[in-house]
Amino acid sequence: MLPTFVAHPKIALVAATDPRHEAVESFSREFEAKGYDTIEELCADPSVQAVYVASPHQYHVAHVKIAAAYGKHVLVEKPMALSTDDCLEMISAAKAASIHLLVGHSHSYDLPYLKTRELISSGSFGSVRMINAINFTDFLYRPRRPEELDTLHGGGVVFSQAAHQIDIVRLLATSPARCVRAVTGIWDPKRPTEGAYNAQVLFSDASFASLTYSGYAHFDSDEFNGWRGELGQRRDPDVYGQARRALKEARSPEDETNMKNRRAYGTVGREEFSLSSDISHNHFGLFIVSCERADLRPMPNGIFVYGDDERWFEEIPEPRVPRAEVVDELYEAVVNGRVPLHSGQWGLATLEICLAILESAKSNGEISLSYSG
Amino acid sequence: MLPTFVAHPKIALVAATDPRHEAVESFSREFEAKGYDTIEELCADPSVQAVYVASPHQYHVAHVKIAAAYGKHVLVEKPMALSTDDCLEMISAAKAASIHLLVGHSHSYDLPYLKTRELISSGSFGSVRMINAINFTDFLYRPRRPEELDTLHGGGVVFSQAAHQIDIVRLLATSPARCVRAVTGIWDPKRPTEGAYNAQVLFSDASFASLTYSGYAHFDSDEFNGWRGELGQRRDPDVYGQARRALKEARSPEDETNMKNRRAYGTVGREEFSLSSDISHNHFGLFIVSCERADLRPMPNGIFVYGDDERWFEEIPEPRVPRAEVVDELYEAVVNGRVPLHSGQWGLATLEICLAILESAKSNGEISLSYSG
Repeated sequence: MLPTFVAHPKIALVAATDPRHEAVESFSREFEAKGYDTIEELCADPSVQAVYVASPHQYHVAHVKIAAAYGKHVLVEKPMALSTDDCLEMISAAKAASIHLLVGHSHSYDLPYLKTRELISSGSFGSVRMINAINFTDFLYRPRRPEELDTLHGGGVVFSQAAHQIDIVRLLATSPARCVRAVTGIWDPKRPTEGAYNAQVLFSDASFASLTYSGYAHFDSDEFNGWRGELGQRRDPDVYGQARRALKEARSPEDETNMKNRRAYGTVGREEFSLSSDISHNHFGLFIVSCERADLRPMPNGIFVYGDDERWFEEIPEPRVPRAEVVDELYEAVVNGRVPLHSGQWGLATLEICLAILESAKSNGEISLSYSG
Repeated sequence: MLPTFVAHPKIALVAATDPRHEAVESFSREFEAKGYDTIEELCADPSVQAVYVASPHQYHVAHVKIAAAYGKHVLVEKPMALSTDDCLEMISAAKAASIHLLVGHSHSYDLPYLKTRELISSGSFGSVRMINAINFTDFLYRPRRPEELDTLHGGGVVFSQAAHQIDIVRLLATSPARCVRAVTGIWDPKRPTEGAYNAQVLFSDASFASLTYSGYAHFDSDEFNGWRGELGQRRDPDVYGQARRALKEARSPEDETNMKNRRAYGTVGREEFSLSSDISHNHFGLFIVSCERADLRPMPNGIFVYGDDERWFEEIPEPRVPRAEVVDELYEAVVNGRVPLHSGQWGLATLEICLAILESAKSNGEISLSYSG
């Protein structure tokens, strides 16, 4: 999110904290911001209006509660938490403190999906009847900390990646999800966490969705998005197998953690944060949304509308600030008091479906949902 | 199948029957073959060695039993029948008469899928873990007889189209299907039969498949097959909406039946049967087969192999005779006594899954399978 915060005119970076002391120092220098040793000190700073919680999943609940206790608005990364109880605690804490709690970034903030939702809401195409979502990436072979390969600690694609796909499907569906039937795949004994799944989500108006994810770094569904990557960057169709090849250099879990940290803020290299001029919107794989009178297919630069008689492309201007939509929604909530779409309740409903995918795969049965709305 | 029978060197067309007398006459003339008024007379002809039963689905059981009673080998169109009881009757009749009973054409005969199966069987990529199948066509808006829009009489995409997709998924899976969870969509009140579905098929080795079909003539998944059509023909990506537009000319169900008949043998026009020189293999939409160490993606002219370290394309030569694979399998069974893959038992197991899709969608539950092997 750093490139977004840096570029967005409505955000000023005033403070940061991180267990890696050198990252805090580097951040302070680069942004002329305060660096704190603890989250409590950061939250006590009166110049801080909202806190972005991007700690590992299992710390979200504690960190959000601290921020709320200090009366700060919160943007917490997805997945919101690892249990619905934790989500409920976070929602209570936010309510008690009268602060706005937003969950994100998630790809359901991406403009092409928001615009697809607008097209659906226009009513021109009838109700949504079926959604097909497919994403094939190299997620499992990017450098990981050991906990990211342990489902009990929030590892695997169901917590980190299904959260995006479910968010988008919920955004586009025209009624609440009511149950989930899912299967998961753990296919690489060296990385023993869910690397793939298929979930059938049934909605209360008899519409349905199929969500497929594979993070095993083989087929790449960026092909179906005009060879644009998840971040809107141009992909070279001729480059293949980089993630797995790079990972072979890691001789130990510590090695791999170091590789991961080299991609984080405050260490060597900042090439990840540079903004290219040739950039489209973010995306999260293939989505085909079948309405009664049209199929809609969001792309990184617009939406294909396949109507009864005609097909056309609704172009969307290139993003000026990547993921600006996240800051826009946060700003509208904090400054103008507008109820955010990606609220705590929203994040809870999405996490419930993540958990239902794991539970359905384990129990081999259908899981009913309580929180979807 | 006529272009195949005409072009294949191992087939001679010797006789035909059809309720449309003019079609029989026209056939007799064109192929110097005998025309019969009834299937019994046709089957009594000693020059007939095998009978291709392409009558509407609900007549398959009666016609196969007649052919078997006369000791003729049978190739019966998919779906094999409309009930498992009918399939079992057909299998018994074939066994009692010691004839070979094959079910097809089905797209699981298509060479790219057979070659994908060979790649899987080689063991180089490990077991199949997940199959994703997606097909978006204009099936529901092609001209139909009224019964083809009535599920009780075998209408809708589950009988006619799921049979293909299930056949291919079963061909590529490495263990028997054990249960089905499905949802269907009936979205056009003017054509009140299933036009779409999503089915989750679980296999006994914990692998799984997701099968999606939409016949509502919006998005067209030929895009994912290099703009080749189901029959391997080149598609023009700029042409859109033809099926629905053409159908608007039909003023009544009779009109529509006449439109359908104009596409059948023995009436005006034979353009459908002409063989183009620019032809690829048949296909049935997008298939991504995820094995432990590679994803495989069959295409109309070969197979993309997305391995751990490399991606490559296994080219398949253009077909000399379209759907030659069907005749090859029939010939091998009838002449060389080789047990066919697409046997009665095979067709029964596929039909059981078609019925399970309808049943699961209706009962909103998971359906266990008995016949898959």
